[in-house]
Amino acid sequence: MSLNQNGGPNALDRLVTLLSKLPGVGKKSAGRISYHILDSDPSYARALAGELAGLHQAIRRCSNCGSFTETDPCPICADPGRDHSIICVVERAQDVRIIEESREFHGLFHVLGGLIAPLEGLGPNSLSIGQLVARLRGDNVKELILALNPTVEGDTTALYLQKLLKDFPVEVTRLASGLPVGGDLEYTDRLTLSRSFRGRVKV
Amino acid sequence: MSLNQNGGPNALDRLVTLLSKLPGVGKKSAGRISYHILDSDPSYARALAGELAGLHQAIRRCSNCGSFTETDPCPICADPGRDHSIICVVERAQDVRIIEESREFHGLFHVLGGLIAPLEGLGPNSLSIGQLVARLRGDNVKELILALNPTVEGDTTALYLQKLLKDFPVEVTRLASGLPVGGDLEYTDRLTLSRSFRGRVKV
Repeated sequence: MSLNQNGGPNALDRLVTLLSKLPGVGKKSAGRISYHILDSDPSYARALAGELAGLHQAIRRCSNCGSFTETDPCPICADPGRDHSIICVVERAQDVRIIEESREFHGLFHVLGGLIAPLEGLGPNSLSIGQLVARLRGDNVKELILALNPTVEGDTTALYLQKLLKDFPVEVTRLASGLPVGGDLEYTDRLTLSRSFRGRVKV
Repeated sequence: MSLNQNGGPNALDRLVTLLSKLPGVGKKSAGRISYHILDSDPSYARALAGELAGLHQAIRRCSNCGSFTETDPCPICADPGRDHSIICVVERAQDVRIIEESREFHGLFHVLGGLIAPLEGLGPNSLSIGQLVARLRGDNVKELILALNPTVEGDTTALYLQKLLKDFPVEVTRLASGLPVGGDLEYTDRLTLSRSFRGRVKV
């Protein structure tokens, strides 16, 4: 029987249910997207299906830095043109993409795989901190840039790493926190304002 | 070579590009969704791929009303329990789903496949108006509810149908237009306010 409670075809319903599990896609967006795909040329649905079916086989984690890659080590770790003496520490693999798109950083990365969050039962052992320490011991790393979100968990993790690495011959820095470019003092929250005061720079 | 200009894997890039073509999904959302799928269990990606690959084969247009269906005629047209003397005319197939979810209407549907938009070169001939007229001739239809958006194109199409069907023994009505429930007079635009005055009802 292909009639469901909404009177729509079941295949469409199943697609809507699956799509509505994606981040930022609610039930309504999932419906709109599904009908859009149905209205589009079938080649689009086939192409998307193909990419999804092969995704987890094509992409693995880099054994060195933990970012997503098709080759191991990843192209960034394998690139001799990049500065191997600086490692940028990020929470998740997608942060690598975001920083790469800014074209601001030319060193290597290290993906922690999360942040320390005691309330959620996430301690240092659930992160790839051991691998990071091994990289610091093996390679000639001069600076470690902590590119962690300015949140309670990000601050906790930064503090933990700072203490852990205080005897290593490596400079530990953290991304500046303050007013966003184009922002307005009036709409800036108290904590951001306080940080931008503490981190004020000479002009 | 699996290094692209953003330093990300190509398979991921291709997925992001495909997803960013969906309505309401920008480049950033597509990236977030792609990484979410990568981080999720591979069974999710496989299930989604399977639904997408089979979508256009599983779902066709109902030869009677034009809505999406797995069987022809669709479950709504085939349901003897529904009121076959009322047809609700909608622009797109997804409008059927929206109206069905409201559980407000128990007749049949007719999907026009668009609206009359002379500026975009869309005339009455590009819509399924001929099939609608054939249904009015064949079946014993007493009322035609035009559930078209209250836009210039919706109004034009409603006016066209009204004139075309004036000699048919069928009552042509249109969904009420006015203040949305929970809305505020202060934030209502002039046209909506004007419509809600013209369509005022006795209390």
